[in-house]
Amino acid sequence: MQLAILLYDRFTALDAIGPYDTLSRVPGVETVFVAERTGPHRNDLGSLGLVAEATLDEVTAPDILVVPGGPGQLAHMTDGPLQEWIRAVDAHTTWTTSVCTGSLILAAAGLLKGRRATSHWLALDQLPGFGAEPTGERVVFDGKYVTAAGVSSGIDMGLTLAGRIAGDTVAQTIQLGIEYDPQPPYDAGSPEKAPAEVTAKLRQGSRDVLMGEA
Amino acid sequence: MQLAILLYDRFTALDAIGPYDTLSRVPGVETVFVAERTGPHRNDLGSLGLVAEATLDEVTAPDILVVPGGPGQLAHMTDGPLQEWIRAVDAHTTWTTSVCTGSLILAAAGLLKGRRATSHWLALDQLPGFGAEPTGERVVFDGKYVTAAGVSSGIDMGLTLAGRIAGDTVAQTIQLGIEYDPQPPYDAGSPEKAPAEVTAKLRQGSRDVLMGEA
Repeated sequence: MQLAILLYDRFTALDAIGPYDTLSRVPGVETVFVAERTGPHRNDLGSLGLVAEATLDEVTAPDILVVPGGPGQLAHMTDGPLQEWIRAVDAHTTWTTSVCTGSLILAAAGLLKGRRATSHWLALDQLPGFGAEPTGERVVFDGKYVTAAGVSSGIDMGLTLAGRIAGDTVAQTIQLGIEYDPQPPYDAGSPEKAPAEVTAKLRQGSRDVLMGEA
Repeated sequence: MQLAILLYDRFTALDAIGPYDTLSRVPGVETVFVAERTGPHRNDLGSLGLVAEATLDEVTAPDILVVPGGPGQLAHMTDGPLQEWIRAVDAHTTWTTSVCTGSLILAAAGLLKGRRATSHWLALDQLPGFGAEPTGERVVFDGKYVTAAGVSSGIDMGLTLAGRIAGDTVAQTIQLGIEYDPQPPYDAGSPEKAPAEVTAKLRQGSRDVLMGEA
């Protein structure tokens, strides 16, 4: 079973690594980081380089596709190599997934039309423009399309999908292996729970957040 | 404020990226991935390459040090370039931190003697051999030494430390920015909570887990 994680410049690292360090641990899964060119791809903050091992041409029929988000998403919203590749491989996937604003790339490729989906909370309002129905859930399944909310939600998505693919015991084994027993020091992880001024500040600066400045 | 994240072959990706995608978002923090050699470093699963931008010689006085864990830790438990570098930069850090079995590297360097510390739950029993006192907490502060439990706990550590460094509002803003409102599909993230057979299986295969096979 091949897991393809798409990279592009200015992606958000945790968007890719959450699904990676859960789904890649499912027995039988072989993972490839794929991009327009091989070699390191720089993240949104500019200080991290993650290596793509294969070009788009070399990955033609992955079983699982993960599209991470990040401000670099903006460069791939119109027709081009990534959009074409996503549509082509989607014809072969068992699961087509995204984290954060990665869902906007899937939506722009026409794959989420008429489907329930999610994205980073600051980007949810962009989904209807592509015919998708935004939901407030953290991980949304609609057929083979699985979208996750902002950044860290990719861990929850990865574990949920691991359970669907390989059963609860495998997913629980992965969860215990990565000791995923979250204990955030604050309860500020959603716009409803965060202090009003924190939510307001990010809403006001949403362009900066989605552009990778926060 | 310089954040140095140490890389070595066969590290666990999420161990490094959890602290990275929280602490690197603190205003004024400049992050560098540092290793014995520059260039891509391969993780425990072998399918990921993360780039080190600087050699040990080039990073002499970071304010924050993060040592991730992973099966490659075993190769750095005796005196050698990493141990020497860690001891040297620790003389300058404001915070010396680890995730997962990264604490065993710090402990082997003699930095956790007489200190409370944690590690991956399967590695906790190795801490007393280095004079450290293992605790069941997910994130442990003892003076400037901050150790986190297995893999995913680095996110909780990063947010907690972000709060100490820059205040609660900054940390909450980062938490909301990465939408860290965890909703694991199972409650199996600690040996006490996971189904008994899952915990037993990982305990039996603990060598495999710590060697990166799980």
